[in-house]
Amino acid sequence: MRKLSDIGEFGLIRRVAAAFAGARPAGVVGIGDDCAVLPWRKDSRLLVTTDLLVEDIHFLRSRITARDLGYKSLAVNLSDIAAMGGRPFAAFLSLGLPAGTGIGWIEAFFVGLRALSRSANVPLLGGDTTGTPGPLVVNLAVLGRVHPSRIKLRSGARPGDVVCVTGTLGDSGGGLRVLLEERPLGRDESALVRKHHRPRPHLAEGEWLGRRAAVTAMIDVSDGIASDLRRIMEQSGCGAEADLDRLPVSPVLRRTAVRYGWNLAEFAAAGGEDYCLLATIRKRDFVRVAAAFRRAFRRPLVPIGRITPASGGLSWLMEGRPARLGSRGFDHFAGVSASPED
Amino acid sequence: MRKLSDIGEFGLIRRVAAAFAGARPAGVVGIGDDCAVLPWRKDSRLLVTTDLLVEDIHFLRSRITARDLGYKSLAVNLSDIAAMGGRPFAAFLSLGLPAGTGIGWIEAFFVGLRALSRSANVPLLGGDTTGTPGPLVVNLAVLGRVHPSRIKLRSGARPGDVVCVTGTLGDSGGGLRVLLEERPLGRDESALVRKHHRPRPHLAEGEWLGRRAAVTAMIDVSDGIASDLRRIMEQSGCGAEADLDRLPVSPVLRRTAVRYGWNLAEFAAAGGEDYCLLATIRKRDFVRVAAAFRRAFRRPLVPIGRITPASGGLSWLMEGRPARLGSRGFDHFAGVSASPED
Repeated sequence: MRKLSDIGEFGLIRRVAAAFAGARPAGVVGIGDDCAVLPWRKDSRLLVTTDLLVEDIHFLRSRITARDLGYKSLAVNLSDIAAMGGRPFAAFLSLGLPAGTGIGWIEAFFVGLRALSRSANVPLLGGDTTGTPGPLVVNLAVLGRVHPSRIKLRSGARPGDVVCVTGTLGDSGGGLRVLLEERPLGRDESALVRKHHRPRPHLAEGEWLGRRAAVTAMIDVSDGIASDLRRIMEQSGCGAEADLDRLPVSPVLRRTAVRYGWNLAEFAAAGGEDYCLLATIRKRDFVRVAAAFRRAFRRPLVPIGRITPASGGLSWLMEGRPARLGSRGFDHFAGVSASPED
Repeated sequence: MRKLSDIGEFGLIRRVAAAFAGARPAGVVGIGDDCAVLPWRKDSRLLVTTDLLVEDIHFLRSRITARDLGYKSLAVNLSDIAAMGGRPFAAFLSLGLPAGTGIGWIEAFFVGLRALSRSANVPLLGGDTTGTPGPLVVNLAVLGRVHPSRIKLRSGARPGDVVCVTGTLGDSGGGLRVLLEERPLGRDESALVRKHHRPRPHLAEGEWLGRRAAVTAMIDVSDGIASDLRRIMEQSGCGAEADLDRLPVSPVLRRTAVRYGWNLAEFAAAGGEDYCLLATIRKRDFVRVAAAFRRAFRRPLVPIGRITPASGGLSWLMEGRPARLGSRGFDHFAGVSASPED
């Protein structure tokens, strides 16, 4: 989940990766992608991802129900497996509970976790629970599998590739803003909060895209596409251009942004935790893949930009002209195209 | 690691296991053993274990160096793999760091973790780091593999089996007592503290015992043999008798107990975190297996009791007569046999 505070996580992961680089066995992709990839059977690889969620950093117990927290804790890890083109098959939970935590809260947490565990067919097979004198902590570790030819890393994007997303952007960020600004929970506001608390991991979409050789890189949208696209750029050694006016946003977010005077582009470009997928696809194959995606999912695979040589960095365009992020969001932002999302 | 406080962990795990029982796929051993066992290749099973360690519950940052904490966090998980007869092959770390944590502390943590990661050949392949407003938290998830015929569960003990341990008991508990009573760190005291902070997971012993069909059940000594033996009894549906005067203790612990007036039997029977292995072996095979163990490891496999029918519960004997735990440890405790430990 997105961090409300951050103590240099990425620097630390790099430090760790450097310290352990020598110990990595052949055939293993380690720290730096959505999942670690390990040898498994001849026709499959093992994917492993783990996420630590801390109360008051990643969630506020006063703002999310135990049930939604149980659901979301698993959802964000399933999304990491989806981003590699894989299928999750087992989950392991570590739970640190403050002394005053009620049994009802704990039961509701497991109701939410079990609902997604069942619907996604990812059984909880173990874990650890303990008391804590501090904030509630939740750690999920999830295992998945993927055919070796279908693994999608962050490092495969090449100049010319089309950048696209599998869902609308900014709904979850809008839901978070509704909560933080304590807006009245009308129908639209509630819908956005629900997107924030119960994001749908794009598992079917991830597996589908994994089977397409034309898909060159993939990541899930956890920190906002501006950040997530930069990670593909870093790992692939390339730049990118993104079209602000093509970022798909839902009618609900659009209405709510107008209602409260929010900068819609900021939500679409920098709002995190949508947990749809951001993929790059070879240009000559994009139209064909997008048409097949629409047939399969009855939703569009929305092109939002293109990969450029490394020297380009990340550039934002609006109606084909350069745009930049000012102190109040993007300058000259005009509008974004809507796209239906389930 | 042993809990300094406990909010009913075992009750919670049972509750969780019940809630998820219906979702467990065929061939999977889930919650309730040292590790979860999952299908893998035809000739191997995947083992998964995870442990959440919370500052001020499982460790005190003022009493353990960052380097030792890094080492121990991995060691306790490797021990769980050893207890199944398996070989660990990958680790995943989640680290929640208070804002004031120094870079030097973090680096030392990884120095300790890396030392064991290298010597045990268990690379760190991923994880998650975040800030926390609360105590420092460490979660390790470790994967291992084992041949299906060599898996040792807690549930295989049968009446008549010999109960034995692969190392001395109570050293780690003695080290903890040294720290809590703030004893001066002479040579003996330092040796015990080192056992507490840098326990050696009995990986080679676990794999060796895994290959012996005569070994019917196994668990690592994490909470003290009184507790750990009860878990084998619960899972196997049997009772046990244990001989207090045969519990192996080190000369160092014996000397230190005399020095400070500690009850030696209490440490041997109830001290936790030794992380040697507690196994049950068919009676007719014990002498042969123990002789081979001594040849292989140049240390004894120490018999400490026997499995009885369920109606027996757990009985303690001393010189063949019943003994019981009083308010100051075991009544009538006379002495225990020493055993060299590396």
